Amino acid sequence: MIHLKLYDPKPEQTRALGSYMEAHSHLLEQIQAGEDGYKDVLGWLHVSTWAGEAVLSQVEALAEKIRKDADAFVLIGVGGSNNTARSVIEALGTDGPEIIYAGNTLSPRALSQVMDAVKGKKIWINCIAKNFETLEPGSSFRILRKYMYEAYGSTEAAQRIIATGTRGSLLEGLCHEHGYTFLGFPEDVGGRYSGITSVGLLPMAVAGINIRKLVQGAMDMERSLLFASAGENVAFEYACIRNMLYKQGYALEMLASFEPAFRWFYKWWIQLFAETEGKEGKGLFPVTGEYSEELHAVGQFVQEGTPLMFETFLDVKTPVGTLVIENDGIKDAFDYLDGMDFQTVNRIAFEATVKAHSRRLPCLILTLDRLDEYCFGEMFYFFMFACCISARLLGVNPFDQPGVEAYKEQMFEGLGKQV
Amino acid sequence: MIHLKLYDPKPEQTRALGSYMEAHSHLLEQIQAGEDGYKDVLGWLHVSTWAGEAVLSQVEALAEKIRKDADAFVLIGVGGSNNTARSVIEALGTDGPEIIYAGNTLSPRALSQVMDAVKGKKIWINCIAKNFETLEPGSSFRILRKYMYEAYGSTEAAQRIIATGTRGSLLEGLCHEHGYTFLGFPEDVGGRYSGITSVGLLPMAVAGINIRKLVQGAMDMERSLLFASAGENVAFEYACIRNMLYKQGYALEMLASFEPAFRWFYKWWIQLFAETEGKEGKGLFPVTGEYSEELHAVGQFVQEGTPLMFETFLDVKTPVGTLVIENDGIKDAFDYLDGMDFQTVNRIAFEATVKAHSRRLPCLILTLDRLDEYCFGEMFYFFMFACCISARLLGVNPFDQPGVEAYKEQMFEGLGKQV
Repeated sequence: MIHLKLYDPKPEQTRALGSYMEAHSHLLEQIQAGEDGYKDVLGWLHVSTWAGEAVLSQVEALAEKIRKDADAFVLIGVGGSNNTARSVIEALGTDGPEIIYAGNTLSPRALSQVMDAVKGKKIWINCIAKNFETLEPGSSFRILRKYMYEAYGSTEAAQRIIATGTRGSLLEGLCHEHGYTFLGFPEDVGGRYSGITSVGLLPMAVAGINIRKLVQGAMDMERSLLFASAGENVAFEYACIRNMLYKQGYALEMLASFEPAFRWFYKWWIQLFAETEGKEGKGLFPVTGEYSEELHAVGQFVQEGTPLMFETFLDVKTPVGTLVIENDGIKDAFDYLDGMDFQTVNRIAFEATVKAHSRRLPCLILTLDRLDEYCFGEMFYFFMFACCISARLLGVNPFDQPGVEAYKEQMFEGLGKQV
Repeated sequence: MIHLKLYDPKPEQTRALGSYMEAHSHLLEQIQAGEDGYKDVLGWLHVSTWAGEAVLSQVEALAEKIRKDADAFVLIGVGGSNNTARSVIEALGTDGPEIIYAGNTLSPRALSQVMDAVKGKKIWINCIAKNFETLEPGSSFRILRKYMYEAYGSTEAAQRIIATGTRGSLLEGLCHEHGYTFLGFPEDVGGRYSGITSVGLLPMAVAGINIRKLVQGAMDMERSLLFASAGENVAFEYACIRNMLYKQGYALEMLASFEPAFRWFYKWWIQLFAETEGKEGKGLFPVTGEYSEELHAVGQFVQEGTPLMFETFLDVKTPVGTLVIENDGIKDAFDYLDGMDFQTVNRIAFEATVKAHSRRLPCLILTLDRLDEYCFGEMFYFFMFACCISARLLGVNPFDQPGVEAYKEQMFEGLGKQV
């Protein structure tokens, strides 16, 4: 489970939370009943439809084959096609092949580094592209595909190429034509909501992540959020608090944690909220704080700068490790740490920060049980559900992203693409 | 040189730039004449006083010794003691020992990863701490120092330990007592302004960065900014534009670039501006965009969300690499890219983004000549100078950070430290 706690230095801002939740409970109930206005894109609500036994077995079998053969696995994807798998793999590590990320840049320098990194290794590539129109994965796929054909010849190259996209897409056609493995995911799951379909599950499984535990976490969270009433629904409560604070004039939500393992999860979270809410001149801008390190960067501003933000802390209940600071006989300025465990020191720093910051700005704490696959599954589902409701409270469409068309139009014109 | 260009969709916001610059030129002149109210902390203005021939030779000789012996070099530092070296090393790479970062976290998990990473390698450690009171480097130094004594015995361990701090500090005393190498840097250079003193220069030199070129870039920028009048001073102009926009109601400045090599430079920039300006309830909150990747995350919000930000793009004039997208005979949705170089594609994406975004928000472009040591030197000096003036325009002290005391007080109390 995820637990929520709120410290608000101006309690009058959120005192009406109960009645606010009651007044907006119909939005929750509509989604729970599947009667939401966006029926066609609510597929992500039902975990078993996109990560059921058939998908899990297929992904695991394919991952096993790759793990036995590959030195490196290249994930070609950007945004929703990259952030979910990456956030789990970077947090929990890989015990399988090296995972190399491509398809997320147009820089010739960064891509040359990718091409240098694959040389001399046995590799598999996985191009992940919902509609196969996005420039970064499309262009990276081209250069990596060419490399594969040259390195392995067309037959073996084809065996080492996997593509993930929606059924009936151009990408699926390409796979059939050239003998690549195709993994499909449902049309009614949008890009930023697709991370725990085959999109994210294959790269995670290749890295040795227990995807069954992760999916179980998501399913348990589904059960909890789809059936809990407004007053008992923690995702709904989180969505309501952030919208109340937004209406009080807060412009930023800062997601912070004292565990640097969340570094890439932050990116997933930023995309989810920025793309879902940032429209019609509205929305809380999502930013993140990798504490304690970034207390030495943004800490001053949070405490005394323009009062723009509230903070949401990710806390992990079960210790993430142990490391004692032993006395080594050398007297320095840190003797007061003798015999303490970093777990304790880090927790004291966390509590001190919440205490100090919450004198000035609202601080929410979301507590996870552990840092593991199961809790990542819970978190992904929790935030997708909360974000969707949050957008409804804001009065915007949670599933589109019309604002990215402006630069794409300019870009395709510059590239001479026939539209 | 660094060139500045401004696209403002509401030209009336910045039309008065010329007279604004004129009206505030005394702030520039005071700093140029060394008559600023913060004389004691203006040491960073004069590159040759902290990175002159004596310092460079000493740092180079020490680096050479380390490069000949070490498999890995552990940089123990946080914030200003870490970000400068790391931003250059991560951008330009190392041809020397592996650089491992510690002293920037309290997470037992992250620190255990550091301890795993050093095992079995020949290592040197460099503890960088201006006043040696900060918890993260102090506690990391403890565990790494203990490891060194156990791995090498006290005599050899001492030879492999370097500490960087201010002269007369407790850290210097510790070095004398135990035979560690001590590198000093001037008292009148504050933490976030100290990156191109021995603080950052030693780790960079160990990584094979040409620190003379970097210092030359900073010195040339010093000459240019210390002598250019208000109307000709690009750092002053940048500072004035951002303050005019702040007064127009913009809350965020987003530093963005299409070159992912700037990832760690962003952290340096965020600390510089957040700590310098975020006080007395004022300041632009600094955020960053790693484009094109993060156009798929925050792009929607920038284009259509709450109008909070203006953007400052870092552009690099000289191509950072070349990689052609060749036709491989397989027809897909990206045939329009046939024969194009990623350098061109990336530039078209950059120009399209500026065109699209500048229809809605002010976009500044700062153009550097190249991605190399010299231009990093220019940038560091440019932004420090601009930031200092910017804080003066805002009416806050550019050199203190009183707001971090609140959580530190709570934390030291929790840790039982005698104050």
